[in-house]
Amino acid sequence: MKKFMDEEFLLSTPTARKLYHEYAEAMPIIDYHCHINPQEIYEDRQFENITQVWLGGDHYKWRQMRSNGVEERDITGDAPDREKFQKWAETLELAIGNPLYHWSHLELKRYFGYEGYLNGDTAKEVWKLCNEKLTGGTMSARSLIKMSNVTVICTTDDPADTLEWHKKIAEDESFDVQVLPAWRPERAMNMKKPDYPDYLKRLSQVSGVKITSFAALIQALRVRMDYFAQAGCRISDHSLDYVMYASASGEEIEEIFARRLSGVMATKEETKKFETAFLVAMGREYHKKNWVMQLHYGVKRDNNGKLYAQLGPDAGIDCINNFAPSSEMADFLNELAKTDELPRTILYSLNPNDNAAIGTIIGCFQDSSAAGKLQQGSGWWFNDNKTGMIEQMTSLANLGLLGNFIGMLTDSRSFLSYTRHEYFRRILCDLIGGWVENGEYPEDYKALEKIVKGISYNNAVRYFGF
Amino acid sequence: MKKFMDEEFLLSTPTARKLYHEYAEAMPIIDYHCHINPQEIYEDRQFENITQVWLGGDHYKWRQMRSNGVEERDITGDAPDREKFQKWAETLELAIGNPLYHWSHLELKRYFGYEGYLNGDTAKEVWKLCNEKLTGGTMSARSLIKMSNVTVICTTDDPADTLEWHKKIAEDESFDVQVLPAWRPERAMNMKKPDYPDYLKRLSQVSGVKITSFAALIQALRVRMDYFAQAGCRISDHSLDYVMYASASGEEIEEIFARRLSGVMATKEETKKFETAFLVAMGREYHKKNWVMQLHYGVKRDNNGKLYAQLGPDAGIDCINNFAPSSEMADFLNELAKTDELPRTILYSLNPNDNAAIGTIIGCFQDSSAAGKLQQGSGWWFNDNKTGMIEQMTSLANLGLLGNFIGMLTDSRSFLSYTRHEYFRRILCDLIGGWVENGEYPEDYKALEKIVKGISYNNAVRYFGF
Amino acid sequence: MKKFMDEEFLLSTPTARKLYHEYAEAMPIIDYHCHINPQEIYEDRQFENITQVWLGGDHYKWRQMRSNGVEERDITGDAPDREKFQKWAETLELAIGNPLYHWSHLELKRYFGYEGYLNGDTAKEVWKLCNEKLTGGTMSARSLIKMSNVTVICTTDDPADTLEWHKKIAEDESFDVQVLPAWRPERAMNMKKPDYPDYLKRLSQVSGVKITSFAALIQALRVRMDYFAQAGCRISDHSLDYVMYASASGEEIEEIFARRLSGVMATKEETKKFETAFLVAMGREYHKKNWVMQLHYGVKRDNNGKLYAQLGPDAGIDCINNFAPSSEMADFLNELAKTDELPRTILYSLNPNDNAAIGTIIGCFQDSSAAGKLQQGSGWWFNDNKTGMIEQMTSLANLGLLGNFIGMLTDSRSFLSYTRHEYFRRILCDLIGGWVENGEYPEDYKALEKIVKGISYNNAVRYFGF
Repeated sequence: MKKFMDEEFLLSTPTARKLYHEYAEAMPIIDYHCHINPQEIYEDRQFENITQVWLGGDHYKWRQMRSNGVEERDITGDAPDREKFQKWAETLELAIGNPLYHWSHLELKRYFGYEGYLNGDTAKEVWKLCNEKLTGGTMSARSLIKMSNVTVICTTDDPADTLEWHKKIAEDESFDVQVLPAWRPERAMNMKKPDYPDYLKRLSQVSGVKITSFAALIQALRVRMDYFAQAGCRISDHSLDYVMYASASGEEIEEIFARRLSGVMATKEETKKFETAFLVAMGREYHKKNWVMQLHYGVKRDNNGKLYAQLGPDAGIDCINNFAPSSEMADFLNELAKTDELPRTILYSLNPNDNAAIGTIIGCFQDSSAAGKLQQGSGWWFNDNKTGMIEQMTSLANLGLLGNFIGMLTDSRSFLSYTRHEYFRRILCDLIGGWVENGEYPEDYKALEKIVKGISYNNAVRYFGF
Repeated sequence: MKKFMDEEFLLSTPTARKLYHEYAEAMPIIDYHCHINPQEIYEDRQFENITQVWLGGDHYKWRQMRSNGVEERDITGDAPDREKFQKWAETLELAIGNPLYHWSHLELKRYFGYEGYLNGDTAKEVWKLCNEKLTGGTMSARSLIKMSNVTVICTTDDPADTLEWHKKIAEDESFDVQVLPAWRPERAMNMKKPDYPDYLKRLSQVSGVKITSFAALIQALRVRMDYFAQAGCRISDHSLDYVMYASASGEEIEEIFARRLSGVMATKEETKKFETAFLVAMGREYHKKNWVMQLHYGVKRDNNGKLYAQLGPDAGIDCINNFAPSSEMADFLNELAKTDELPRTILYSLNPNDNAAIGTIIGCFQDSSAAGKLQQGSGWWFNDNKTGMIEQMTSLANLGLLGNFIGMLTDSRSFLSYTRHEYFRRILCDLIGGWVENGEYPEDYKALEKIVKGISYNNAVRYFGF
Repeated sequence: MKKFMDEEFLLSTPTARKLYHEYAEAMPIIDYHCHINPQEIYEDRQFENITQVWLGGDHYKWRQMRSNGVEERDITGDAPDREKFQKWAETLELAIGNPLYHWSHLELKRYFGYEGYLNGDTAKEVWKLCNEKLTGGTMSARSLIKMSNVTVICTTDDPADTLEWHKKIAEDESFDVQVLPAWRPERAMNMKKPDYPDYLKRLSQVSGVKITSFAALIQALRVRMDYFAQAGCRISDHSLDYVMYASASGEEIEEIFARRLSGVMATKEETKKFETAFLVAMGREYHKKNWVMQLHYGVKRDNNGKLYAQLGPDAGIDCINNFAPSSEMADFLNELAKTDELPRTILYSLNPNDNAAIGTIIGCFQDSSAAGKLQQGSGWWFNDNKTGMIEQMTSLANLGLLGNFIGMLTDSRSFLSYTRHEYFRRILCDLIGGWVENGEYPEDYKALEKIVKGISYNNAVRYFGF
């Protein structure tokens, strides 16, 4: 029996261990997609206790606590932090096989030096230990980032954002980690929202472009993209129900947009046409700017109306949307590719059933403008677990070139989540090491080093051009 | 090499063995969903031969025999029982990797003490052995149930049913196993059927409520639910194409219903609205009564028209229906949750691809009214095999709290199928034991005992409140 | 650690090794579905170099090279063959876990005796070795086929084809391998294509039946089927978006067809009706002729418009189409079954998610006219890899009788691809051997020999009646 989460955690063969310890372990981290608040980095936030860090915004954990019948008061409500932590500890014990079990214990080990396991009985000692460390002055936001060997962080930002904190961080010579904005123009696309006109007003204001037409909308975004680019932005991000394709003439799009401005909501089909046109226009801009386009899809958000009314978005009430026709995704990419305007693109679905479809689609649009130009994104959100990662990488290996994979991201709101990169690398090394042990790939350490270091770090550096 | 289906069958590590033998093996069985005929329990049915038990109604086996080119006469027809058994034995040999191979041999071992393997050559000796035991007076329906350590059985019953056999069993003090009805109001919902008006008449009669409106239909069902509740019913069951959601006003539903009563069949969209309204109304009643709602979906039934004409339903001619939009399932649950009327609910899909969607949806609606209030049902029907169980439990573990899982059911028509609980428990212990051996969960036997005994038995006791 | 792709490649247990070496390895090969050019067999084509064999038409490899950022010139363009080979070798190194890695090295081992591994550094020596062998006079098309122990090859042929090369091969007594045509009436069904009327003219000409109606179209095809039957054809093949079902009266079909002849394109719904009628008519003919019907579906072809304009079809720009309602597939099969006109049928989906749906559907239509009358086809195209095969066989085993499976096909354009049968058999034996080692099937070598030899070869012989 292997010891619980020891040095060789998830590394089941000698080759896996060698690959991890010699190649993967020491590589720095590029976290090209997360939801960290740059203000907290600039201000070098300190935490008062482990509940703040762990349960402050982590809807993954909230879901598990609700699954254990915990009162909302003890999750997102006004119960004391110690009590919330107790409830979490009691819940965790039942989360056997869940990535939160491993993430939590990796964080306890790597950041707090705790080698036991957390449950209702040990909650008290863990609470004490963590809080001592957290308030001891050496575990601020910046220290955690440095301690984690992170070289680049890309946050997620609205086009109207001032990027003030990114600028301040860049000017601060005492902190050498790149903290870059990522472009997420969701609100500019989402014409279904009641506050869409308000948002456009704000965008007009910050861009100096009066948005009276679809063309003007794109122009306003172009202005903001220049602004983002100056702040070091290289990446965009879109969250979609699915990657849709419905073609329409430019006139039709202008009409739909004009009607929306006049207060008439678009039909479902019109919305789809508008969103297609929006996304195509954005894709072309990304291509011009040499930015990467990230498309996340397969989510249905805010399903529990009652909790949504209480807590708003990101409350742990999202689920997989299993409607995602691969034919439309292929047609969308072709729309950009046919004029040679397809940017480097990363596709992520929340639905693990989409692995193979994505793998076959990206193969249709690869070209010599970049090795691995189209990428299947790492196991995302509900797939961010051992099974999800193994399935994503196995599918990618079956259908494409695993060796060009750009690897892991955290998608997290917490400064302790960098251990997810460790988790990923262990799984990667175990998978590849297993193939070598099984005679499915030669014991060629030159090639293996290139592949493992590439997926851990180097491929992302090359791909994003940081 | 491990011996064929020995004591350590499916238990590949020392920890798995310990978990199974020390915690799981001796736990009693709650079979909260099956299709056993309560009359046979009351009358303590005796069987003449193994063909009656095995091939009398088991359409799983019928399918395999047809797959082997066996004549229908030798399956459901008038061939002699010995000949049918021979054909089954010859078929079984080819069913390598099939759960029927394991179920059949578990039954032969546990109930008949046969330690060999069944094939065309051994059919004769097995036939003789089984029939001796079956007719020896110690293997009646009740003896089999007691021998299997079953404490509760929930059958499947129509709202118009008199429940006479359940009552008689309850009154019979010589038999202490709870045999409870489960509420399956399928015929009350299925307005597409030509005999729908006839069924409503029958329901009017038994309930004493004249069904002249949708409201009256629900009222009639309410009356019958009270009747079922008095007989110990705690569970409902719905078999759906998919969990649909199409909202409509109360007036519209009444109009659709009135038209159907007048003989005008509803359109597809109307049917969907009606079924949504029906299911929402039922869900609210279950919530009031503190019953559990089971939703089974993803089936297309009676596909082979020729065989259906010959044999009727449950003839082994059903398949997976892969149309099941997760967005509607989420909206349906929200419809009940938004007024705090969502009952404890178990979701089962016949399509293994739905595992992750279900896992993410239930997480949106969990609350403090019960630990594990929403459940992903155990690998059902075509997923009731080693792969299906492992995938269901792994998915559940990845996305939720496996520790709160209520575990296995037989869904069977046979008194020998309780070995499926053994099969399930072995797979459960192997999965969890493997995680412990692999350092993914601590060797904390206090927690492991709680989890294993919980999933085997205790969670169901708590969840259903038997 | 196992050596790289040695004698025991993919065989992880003693039983797996025994099954492979004693039962599977020496069995001949029936390649009942490929895209080899019969002219090349008749003319006993010789190859000048390994690039011709490997990169001449293999769009699997093209995709990988594009994924590695290789210029199209070095893939399908006019770069020198040596340079193309270099680029392929450099790409292959990154294809860890990809079936091309294994196929390529199996081919290098079995046909060229190369025991190293191919990468950028070894490309030169491999180029030299392969070309010496290829031009040495012993590696012509026919020698490769004989060397591979192939007894039957079924090509893929249009109804209007003269089958001249098949006839010449049959007449050539110096070559005893059966090379049979397979019937692929795709162009006769595909009324959406602009050149459909031209094709019908050609079909009229070769059949002698003037195609002025749908009935006449079927009659013309009937004539050609007789012609194909005389040339030994036993198999048909249809590539479909999905297996559709939309019923229509004979009159309606005639009207749709007449309109198309007059130049009016059918609507989407009309096309579906027409295709259903066409496929049903074909199925009935196959039943009469005792041919096998192959239905391949789940593909979206020619997605990259720019590359398609350059290279035409089969350019490596196809992907999975994930729209494939199982309900329609069941209804289609029932349409044939209800009049007892369902031929033996093999269903293949490109979408691995369809495994379970197929497995449950075929079970509905099995009958005594043949053991394993309906088959789930072997892991096809993008599923033709270790994972895909294991999943297909495991699903088949869970849901049906693996013992009656007709096994592997190459679907290839190359004479070196027969090693894919070796690859398949190793995976088969490892899967089954694992079950035996694990006590899930008895160590009954009589049964195991029957099963392994059956799936490797004997089942196909019996099924197709070669």
